[in-house]
Amino acid sequence: MNFYKQNPIPNLPETKSKRVVIIGAGFAGLKLARKLMGSAYQVLLLDKNNYHQFQPLFYQVATSGLEPSAISFPLRKVFHNSKNIIFRMAEAEMIDQEANRLYTSVGYIDYDYLILAMGADTNYFGLENIEKYSTPMKTVSEALFIRNKIISNYETAINIGEEEKRKSIMNVVIVGGGPTGVELAGAVAELRNNVFPKDYPELNFKNMKVVLIEAGQSLLSSMSEEAKSKSKQYLENLGVEVLVDTQVLDYDGEKVTLKGREAIETKTLLWAAGIKPNGISGVRDAQKIPNGRLIVDEFNQLEGSGNIYALGDICINSTVENPRGLPQVAQVALQQGDNLANNLLGELKNKQWKSFKYKDLGSMATIGRKLAVVDLPFVKFQGLLAWMTWLFVHLMAILGVKNKLFIFLNWSWNYLAFDPSLRLLIRPKQIKTKKDEELMQD
Amino acid sequence: MNFYKQNPIPNLPETKSKRVVIIGAGFAGLKLARKLMGSAYQVLLLDKNNYHQFQPLFYQVATSGLEPSAISFPLRKVFHNSKNIIFRMAEAEMIDQEANRLYTSVGYIDYDYLILAMGADTNYFGLENIEKYSTPMKTVSEALFIRNKIISNYETAINIGEEEKRKSIMNVVIVGGGPTGVELAGAVAELRNNVFPKDYPELNFKNMKVVLIEAGQSLLSSMSEEAKSKSKQYLENLGVEVLVDTQVLDYDGEKVTLKGREAIETKTLLWAAGIKPNGISGVRDAQKIPNGRLIVDEFNQLEGSGNIYALGDICINSTVENPRGLPQVAQVALQQGDNLANNLLGELKNKQWKSFKYKDLGSMATIGRKLAVVDLPFVKFQGLLAWMTWLFVHLMAILGVKNKLFIFLNWSWNYLAFDPSLRLLIRPKQIKTKKDEELMQD
Repeated sequence: MNFYKQNPIPNLPETKSKRVVIIGAGFAGLKLARKLMGSAYQVLLLDKNNYHQFQPLFYQVATSGLEPSAISFPLRKVFHNSKNIIFRMAEAEMIDQEANRLYTSVGYIDYDYLILAMGADTNYFGLENIEKYSTPMKTVSEALFIRNKIISNYETAINIGEEEKRKSIMNVVIVGGGPTGVELAGAVAELRNNVFPKDYPELNFKNMKVVLIEAGQSLLSSMSEEAKSKSKQYLENLGVEVLVDTQVLDYDGEKVTLKGREAIETKTLLWAAGIKPNGISGVRDAQKIPNGRLIVDEFNQLEGSGNIYALGDICINSTVENPRGLPQVAQVALQQGDNLANNLLGELKNKQWKSFKYKDLGSMATIGRKLAVVDLPFVKFQGLLAWMTWLFVHLMAILGVKNKLFIFLNWSWNYLAFDPSLRLLIRPKQIKTKKDEELMQD
Repeated sequence: MNFYKQNPIPNLPETKSKRVVIIGAGFAGLKLARKLMGSAYQVLLLDKNNYHQFQPLFYQVATSGLEPSAISFPLRKVFHNSKNIIFRMAEAEMIDQEANRLYTSVGYIDYDYLILAMGADTNYFGLENIEKYSTPMKTVSEALFIRNKIISNYETAINIGEEEKRKSIMNVVIVGGGPTGVELAGAVAELRNNVFPKDYPELNFKNMKVVLIEAGQSLLSSMSEEAKSKSKQYLENLGVEVLVDTQVLDYDGEKVTLKGREAIETKTLLWAAGIKPNGISGVRDAQKIPNGRLIVDEFNQLEGSGNIYALGDICINSTVENPRGLPQVAQVALQQGDNLANNLLGELKNKQWKSFKYKDLGSMATIGRKLAVVDLPFVKFQGLLAWMTWLFVHLMAILGVKNKLFIFLNWSWNYLAFDPSLRLLIRPKQIKTKKDEELMQD
């Protein structure tokens, strides 16, 4: 049996408003909270981190192109002028659906509406060794870890005398042919082609393999045929070995074993092969499908609940048109957050709830300098124009004028100088004592 | 007895040139290496990190004003076009002066000239509890740790119900009235005055003390009387409690005990009270003074050695004019690096060695927005003009056009928006396995 904190979250302003508790400040949760700014609800937004993370650009943090701060936005700053939105850095632990109470790492909170927007984490599909030895990239911290790992690999390789022994430390293998895997592979290949040989003249980067492995028949499976074939061609032009229809069986930290193919030596296996929804205690089995996605209706209301909603990657609404639910992408999360916000605001005026309609705005992926693939509803294109479209769309999507400006300048710089300059192995010092955490336990 | 790696550092280009080995890529070591670019020496530069750190701006990293990357510069990038300069990320472990051999964490190396430029680390003056519980700021990692600590303090405080219990977690105490302590105190006070109340409306920041403690009679002891009194006045105007002539006796992680004064509750004691030179095995007792500084002559040659030199904070040349040596500041390190480089270059042409002459260019410190104190050789001034001078001098001293540009933009932004926006608690994920390190042991 678990024991949860038996005191309420302290220091909350008293209110007669209805209380909306949102777990998770990703695309869905943050969108919802921002739209409820200044409304007659008291909103408590919870997140494990004190910042919103812009996932589509994690791969640029991992490959020394952007600073973590450029794609992370302090949540408290968003709500400086909104008295009705309260933020707490905390972990949600258990829902008591009967009592309308949420238990968290900093106390419990009673809600009128509870919104589950905790997103998804890496899915290793039960492969224990992969989970143990590979490196995921679902947080900005993990992206920074990948950067540090790649850089320290070469600082290590340079001190190994025998060329044969350097192989596994120089190769980079990426699993997962979705946008994350494709973008990572392209960026790592560009580092190998343009940057590392200048940084490490003693090493021979012809020996460094960049391999992208996908279990399915093609890369970017949800995109158009043109996008699938062009992205593969672009990657191969950059020198990436693309293995489709290839299944990873095992990994021991040194060697990836593949089904029906030769094993590949590597100390760096980046795992972007799948996601699974983040769980929380107190959700009944009948409220989720076997893989953990929460069952919602057309208003994103959780199955069998009257006041709990689930948004984004974590939820599924199985319909005739989409029996397997909508794709787990940022656009769905944003639009669902928007729709729920409108409904909650309408509720204050006793308006009828509107069901969620997904508007597919298209999808895109970038493959290195000047190359991308873009599928819009009525037009598909690839190459330089696609790359510029990709840059523009992502720049506009970034929160905050300062982050926009700094990313734009960074991109311009990296483009002109051909040299992402953040190849720094900086780790914050370790915490010496556990005193701070003790205080929290009082 | 210690065992050192019994193999040479691998993958070094063969050469008939004389070999200069430099330990430390701080102001002195990097200056020397850069001036030897393209010369007829083979230069091996060693540093624990793969980047040069710009110490004068650590305090801005600690107070969310600048990113670590803005003041850190990748060393390999500096030497992209210089075949005679080789960099290795390694720790120097022992000098064998008889054999002209240096042992490092990645193998040994034989030198013709050895340059010791390892700088200094925090000095706790034997106070064990202070060393255990306080937080130093002598590396960019430590500065980042301070940032994370301060932010997590408030994320913790907001979840503590009783106001009395929040005191120790909100107060910040800084020890050391040199430029580092003064600059830190000013920047922390500005966060308290302008930023934290907006971030944490539930907390009362009138309860947050910022205290600066100095054992001597005044702040900035090496500067002019005007600078001393003005800096104190500026800090007090910002609401900093300045305690001069005050000795710290002990600290238990919760409370600082002072001699003849009331103790101060704080969980955040920042220690900038002194430095001590970094040591290395193989230096004889007769080659250093009791506090560890290495005795050098007017050419920076180590006492009793023919081919070892020491530069910057680590060395002392006791003369009639300066019996206690030169101040341990960036200017001395830079000028000594420059002079030794000229002598080594001259040696190739059989020129006579020139003795080092320190040219004091003055000193300065900034105390928050629009305020600084500047002592130049012939003029002393304070206030806005001093602040602008400080900005300009530090911007020019930063390595690299990109870092200059980004720092300038950050400063402009922070100045206009009154809002250092890097209040992000980002930590890279922990390393899961020790495999990489094992490989190095082979």
